[in-house]
Amino acid sequence: MKVIRHDETHHDVCEIEADVLLQGELDGSYLSEDNRSIIPTDTVKNTVHFLAHDQLGTCRTSFAQVIGKHFLETYPHLAGAEIELRERKWDRLSIDGTPHPHAFAHSANGEFFSRGSFSRGQAPVLSSGIRGHLIMKTTQSGFEGYNICEFTTLPPTSDRVFATRLGAEWSFDSTATDYCSADAAILTAAHEVFANTYSPSVQRTLFEIGELALARVPHISRIELKMPNVHFLSLDLTKLSRPNQNAVLLPTDEPHGEIEAVITR
Amino acid sequence: MKVIRHDETHHDVCEIEADVLLQGELDGSYLSEDNRSIIPTDTVKNTVHFLAHDQLGTCRTSFAQVIGKHFLETYPHLAGAEIELRERKWDRLSIDGTPHPHAFAHSANGEFFSRGSFSRGQAPVLSSGIRGHLIMKTTQSGFEGYNICEFTTLPPTSDRVFATRLGAEWSFDSTATDYCSADAAILTAAHEVFANTYSPSVQRTLFEIGELALARVPHISRIELKMPNVHFLSLDLTKLSRPNQNAVLLPTDEPHGEIEAVITR
Amino acid sequence: MKVIRHDETHHDVCEIEADVLLQGELDGSYLSEDNRSIIPTDTVKNTVHFLAHDQLGTCRTSFAQVIGKHFLETYPHLAGAEIELRERKWDRLSIDGTPHPHAFAHSANGEFFSRGSFSRGQAPVLSSGIRGHLIMKTTQSGFEGYNICEFTTLPPTSDRVFATRLGAEWSFDSTATDYCSADAAILTAAHEVFANTYSPSVQRTLFEIGELALARVPHISRIELKMPNVHFLSLDLTKLSRPNQNAVLLPTDEPHGEIEAVITR
Amino acid sequence: MKVIRHDETHHDVCEIEADVLLQGELDGSYLSEDNRSIIPTDTVKNTVHFLAHDQLGTCRTSFAQVIGKHFLETYPHLAGAEIELRERKWDRLSIDGTPHPHAFAHSANGEFFSRGSFSRGQAPVLSSGIRGHLIMKTTQSGFEGYNICEFTTLPPTSDRVFATRLGAEWSFDSTATDYCSADAAILTAAHEVFANTYSPSVQRTLFEIGELALARVPHISRIELKMPNVHFLSLDLTKLSRPNQNAVLLPTDEPHGEIEAVITR
Repeated sequence: MKVIRHDETHHDVCEIEADVLLQGELDGSYLSEDNRSIIPTDTVKNTVHFLAHDQLGTCRTSFAQVIGKHFLETYPHLAGAEIELRERKWDRLSIDGTPHPHAFAHSANGEFFSRGSFSRGQAPVLSSGIRGHLIMKTTQSGFEGYNICEFTTLPPTSDRVFATRLGAEWSFDSTATDYCSADAAILTAAHEVFANTYSPSVQRTLFEIGELALARVPHISRIELKMPNVHFLSLDLTKLSRPNQNAVLLPTDEPHGEIEAVITR
Repeated sequence: MKVIRHDETHHDVCEIEADVLLQGELDGSYLSEDNRSIIPTDTVKNTVHFLAHDQLGTCRTSFAQVIGKHFLETYPHLAGAEIELRERKWDRLSIDGTPHPHAFAHSANGEFFSRGSFSRGQAPVLSSGIRGHLIMKTTQSGFEGYNICEFTTLPPTSDRVFATRLGAEWSFDSTATDYCSADAAILTAAHEVFANTYSPSVQRTLFEIGELALARVPHISRIELKMPNVHFLSLDLTKLSRPNQNAVLLPTDEPHGEIEAVITR
Repeated sequence: MKVIRHDETHHDVCEIEADVLLQGELDGSYLSEDNRSIIPTDTVKNTVHFLAHDQLGTCRTSFAQVIGKHFLETYPHLAGAEIELRERKWDRLSIDGTPHPHAFAHSANGEFFSRGSFSRGQAPVLSSGIRGHLIMKTTQSGFEGYNICEFTTLPPTSDRVFATRLGAEWSFDSTATDYCSADAAILTAAHEVFANTYSPSVQRTLFEIGELALARVPHISRIELKMPNVHFLSLDLTKLSRPNQNAVLLPTDEPHGEIEAVITR
Repeated sequence: MKVIRHDETHHDVCEIEADVLLQGELDGSYLSEDNRSIIPTDTVKNTVHFLAHDQLGTCRTSFAQVIGKHFLETYPHLAGAEIELRERKWDRLSIDGTPHPHAFAHSANGEFFSRGSFSRGQAPVLSSGIRGHLIMKTTQSGFEGYNICEFTTLPPTSDRVFATRLGAEWSFDSTATDYCSADAAILTAAHEVFANTYSPSVQRTLFEIGELALARVPHISRIELKMPNVHFLSLDLTKLSRPNQNAVLLPTDEPHGEIEAVITR
């Protein structure tokens, strides 16, 4: 975690967990006792801490670039690096309606991340996204007209609860610079489609989210979306003399549908 | 989960996980094969679903009362019941600045719960609280003047990061009715003390939170507070030529301090 | 973790996570900025490490005694200490049928723990136990003859799968010395009852385990048992032309029954 | 979970969690409200249950084949299927030294899985493996001679604790039939190399495990190994007058090294 001190009491924070995977001429250590090519985990850790000290601000995706560039420049025997940064988000506490200068609460609905893929001699490939963002709508969702076969038992419906742990990753093109604004705009687009559009299927809603994200943010070239169903099944209370009720539902983890797609321009 | 439909598109939701522990004349099933006293888990489950259908609104604590009362009234061989309800909170999605009538996002920083202890012939004891609410301040916290012994290695400080997973449980007296307002007022009190007051120790801040909660909400008789340290240790970058830095810190799960107290009127 | 070196290559290990909660004249730090009574977390951590260095062997329960005694003897303002030690068990790897002198695999089915309650001027109260030990029998279990009411939907059965995450804690009397043998004997007793006795209810099996544990190990005075149901429900494949099957079952986490009892001499 | 009843009291069990991902002509549901191509999650679930009823034995990998084949044969618009099966292993309880016919305990050190990749018109690609298998050796491991740079702070050592959560996946060639024996032989090979061979680096030990696995099991064509470090760091007790101790160590989750390789014939 980096504490960025604008003055004695006005601070920003950025807390990140980093994965750094290095590739290159590392065979020696696998094929023999020759460890000369190994950059120890401890050194990688120190490097990330050092770079955080000197260069980390509040932008996760920019810091992925700093790390990737450093490793390729410093170690000639490396051919590539894969960086993933996962952020624990902190929102300012609001006291009497005012954001506080140095007190924060964890913003916990899902986890933002950034990834960078670095290969010597090529432009880096940067992306960011979110995992596990739990959203739900209690109407304006149905599921009808699907494939019917001997294993079909699901009744069609034009009014169901639709909940999902949204996962998304968007890839920046080389013109992107304001990564944080892109992140916010895409999450807003997802919320708008999800809340305001009737969902005939998870598939359709997923695609419409992707379309709007690409329309709103010109600097992304593709978006990968995962929308696993978080099922809420209407409980059968027939034996308890409450038939055909659609008010009490059971959240059901498994089995769940796993709907995914990649949408490009 | 209960979906409360004000009209076709304007809904409230209340999602609860319930623990129901029953006590009474149940020895038979332990001492022999006589199961007559056992109220099966399946029946308890059905009962909670039925009561949710008929009586659950948006107030978790009131519903704990409904459940406890039902079991003592229905089964004469029971002497008591312990109910705990844990809520998965859903906030309305905000679209273009307006709360949406039926789209929600999970509010995930900690978990609210209510508990009721019911004994035949006595008034129920109700409480509610929160677990795992993660908050942090990046200055206005220190720790000095503590016990020194041969095992002391901690340096004193007047400026440290202070983070905790706040846990709290407040007990309602018999005059309480608006449980949800009490919950909100106590969390607000905790945030105010945490953000606005210099912390000389976790112990002192914890006690001040308890004092303010009792002052703000007359209908609670006691509050139990747990504030485990979520340590952020300043990294030693001396060997990397960045000595005495206080900007890059390492979140450290274990070991952690576990500070607790019960504060009563 | 302590590595106990019998010689250069023949080792034992004991890996423990410790909770230490201290009570006594600690009010000062809550009521004012006076921290003199606080023994910092960091000091407690150092103390546990130091005591592990000097006195930890392979017996978890004995080490709980060492820690509790140390704190009461060292700090006159303390009145009591609650110690809990949780062990990550390591079994020797078996290579060509022979236990290896210094290679181990994690033994992961549940977690053993020990607890000690220490009050100044009184004998310590020691206990140990296991949490989350998952066992299952696929027949020789039924559930019939239970309370019937308007909320009953469960059909009686004389042949069901019975699975549980066994939790148990046994309290040693002052004559106990060989705590590890007691732990092993009690787990063996639980397995024997569970495997070899028809179960008419979880309650009955739980009680029989308690009875046998008390009979086998004279140095324990009480045992607390928790046997939450891990339900395996026979799937209804009627619509798929496989009615009344009892071969394919669905493990179901929630809702589950939570059966508990304390059995004393 | 399937209970395989050899007779009334002698049973085998096989408990599996299945992922089924289908590919093919499914665009319609994404691009419009036309759901005709969707095979609902509920149908996939029913199918897996039905196939388990009719065809699941104790071999996970064979069942992956059954599922993959079924989907491609039943639905002409599918082009491919990716199946992953994760097994919750149950070992027989041993009572008085004898394996019990119908009582089991969870075998919890890691999770076995199988995967099948099915494409219409091509031979299926089958693999199996294990994730999260925690093993440790307390000596006969070192790490020296690695890359040194300005960010290096790690001291070299010829005697350290080496622990890892072994992950491995081995790919069967078309001649393989006895998948379970292969699984057991590869895990044995891993244990042998780990226990009996001095480790100059995680990399070297990982490669030697891969080599021995390929030598022992001719029906696998490749093995992917992941050996993340589970660090045990010797505690610095210098200030507590116990310098240079190498007996009390601290297990440290993060940061950790993540060493991976794919080894082929």
